Amino acid sequence: METGRIDGTTRLFTIIGDPIHGVRTPTLFNEMFGRKNVNAVMVAHHVLAADLETCWNGLKTMRNLDGIVITMPHKTPMTGLVDSLGINARVAGAINAARRKSDGTWEGDMFDGVGCVDGLRRQGHEPAGRREFLMGAGGAGSAVAGALAQAGVKRLIVQDIDARRAARLADRIRAVYPGLDIDSGTIGDGPFDIAINATPQGMRDGDPLPFDPSPLPASTLVVDVIIKPEVTPLLVLAERTGHRIQPGGHMHRGQAVAAAKFFGFDLES
Amino acid sequence: METGRIDGTTRLFTIIGDPIHGVRTPTLFNEMFGRKNVNAVMVAHHVLAADLETCWNGLKTMRNLDGIVITMPHKTPMTGLVDSLGINARVAGAINAARRKSDGTWEGDMFDGVGCVDGLRRQGHEPAGRREFLMGAGGAGSAVAGALAQAGVKRLIVQDIDARRAARLADRIRAVYPGLDIDSGTIGDGPFDIAINATPQGMRDGDPLPFDPSPLPASTLVVDVIIKPEVTPLLVLAERTGHRIQPGGHMHRGQAVAAAKFFGFDLES
Repeated sequence: METGRIDGTTRLFTIIGDPIHGVRTPTLFNEMFGRKNVNAVMVAHHVLAADLETCWNGLKTMRNLDGIVITMPHKTPMTGLVDSLGINARVAGAINAARRKSDGTWEGDMFDGVGCVDGLRRQGHEPAGRREFLMGAGGAGSAVAGALAQAGVKRLIVQDIDARRAARLADRIRAVYPGLDIDSGTIGDGPFDIAINATPQGMRDGDPLPFDPSPLPASTLVVDVIIKPEVTPLLVLAERTGHRIQPGGHMHRGQAVAAAKFFGFDLES
Repeated sequence: METGRIDGTTRLFTIIGDPIHGVRTPTLFNEMFGRKNVNAVMVAHHVLAADLETCWNGLKTMRNLDGIVITMPHKTPMTGLVDSLGINARVAGAINAARRKSDGTWEGDMFDGVGCVDGLRRQGHEPAGRREFLMGAGGAGSAVAGALAQAGVKRLIVQDIDARRAARLADRIRAVYPGLDIDSGTIGDGPFDIAINATPQGMRDGDPLPFDPSPLPASTLVVDVIIKPEVTPLLVLAERTGHRIQPGGHMHRGQAVAAAKFFGFDLES
């Protein structure tokens, strides 16, 4: 819709982060609000880490604010500021969205991993019942692991440069999904149907590969969560060695779709 | 512009108040931003009086927020929250706009009265050098009195149902404009070129008239600051007794123009 239609009856959404200039989430949401003729708008607020709690206390006073999207560096500290957490947030220890419930309290949840699973499904790669390898047990890795567990993977092996961090993630997930075959390990513990990079390795020129895809069977799908570059060196090599690949853009779109659903909207209709 | 163009580089403005559903200020600003192709948007935040300070602390953390418009009931308490006050704010004891200065501090000022003076000028009624009567020494009256003083009126008589409040306003204005012929008094202390109602009398059916315009010379312009109804009973009677009149809408438009100028924009080009 035209910004000139914004008035005192317009419902508000925001995304907070630092830096904020690169975010495209408001565009996705606002185009959807326009298509559906919903009197709502999403803006982006540039908020530094040191200001998060003060900002959040202020945001909560805004009675016509219905939801916020959270990006770096606020995803982990926001878990301590909302009133309740969804299951994926509890596993990931981070949130990327919060909504105001009808009782006035705020519920946070994490859709980064859900976006990854959604991206896999859109490309025809149902993760349920498959054997998966995940490199990285940090924020993104934790979110992806939680969503894969929720999706019903058959087996999940998590590796991290910090082996204890991988073991702790496996423990956290096992506590929530007691029946799941999950453990820390290495890419040598295959075979795997899907191998996912959830580390930042590949964002900068000269980064080492997060893992070597060459020895994987040709049937293994190689997935990266990195958005820029669109096709990382890992994916370039995986493609060269005969693997199907999936770049991070699919996950990014899936995150926005899942967060919109959390707010009560279908981003794609 | 289309809301779909809002992204992380969009500069932000907001209006805060309670209630907020009736405000039209975002529409005026956003149409102007669109015309000028400025990547900025104004939204409206519904904020209760008890939440003002918490909200303001939060708003200040938003690095891409450049200015806020303030409406009821926050105009007076906001004077204690900004870092510095313009001259009209000091006279009125209230602000209706605040902007972030280049040093990061926030400056507040009051444009309600400036809007009234601007509205008079647009209709060809220059207040400078004229004799004016003002009914009401509350928030709106104080703002109008300050702007009339700044505009260079020849004489200003202020009346209020609380005579001491009128006297205190005259004292405040005299302290800032020592040469001005200003005093508390009554509508009987004329003749006046312009007579202005700045009380809420006339907003509701059955309100008493703020003053009786009948005895005023036919040359006296009768002005009301009330926006709804557009033509108040005072103005109906004034017109019937042969006076030119000016409804509150002119002042309202002038307020937005003046606040936009304070933020660095020309609302009318």
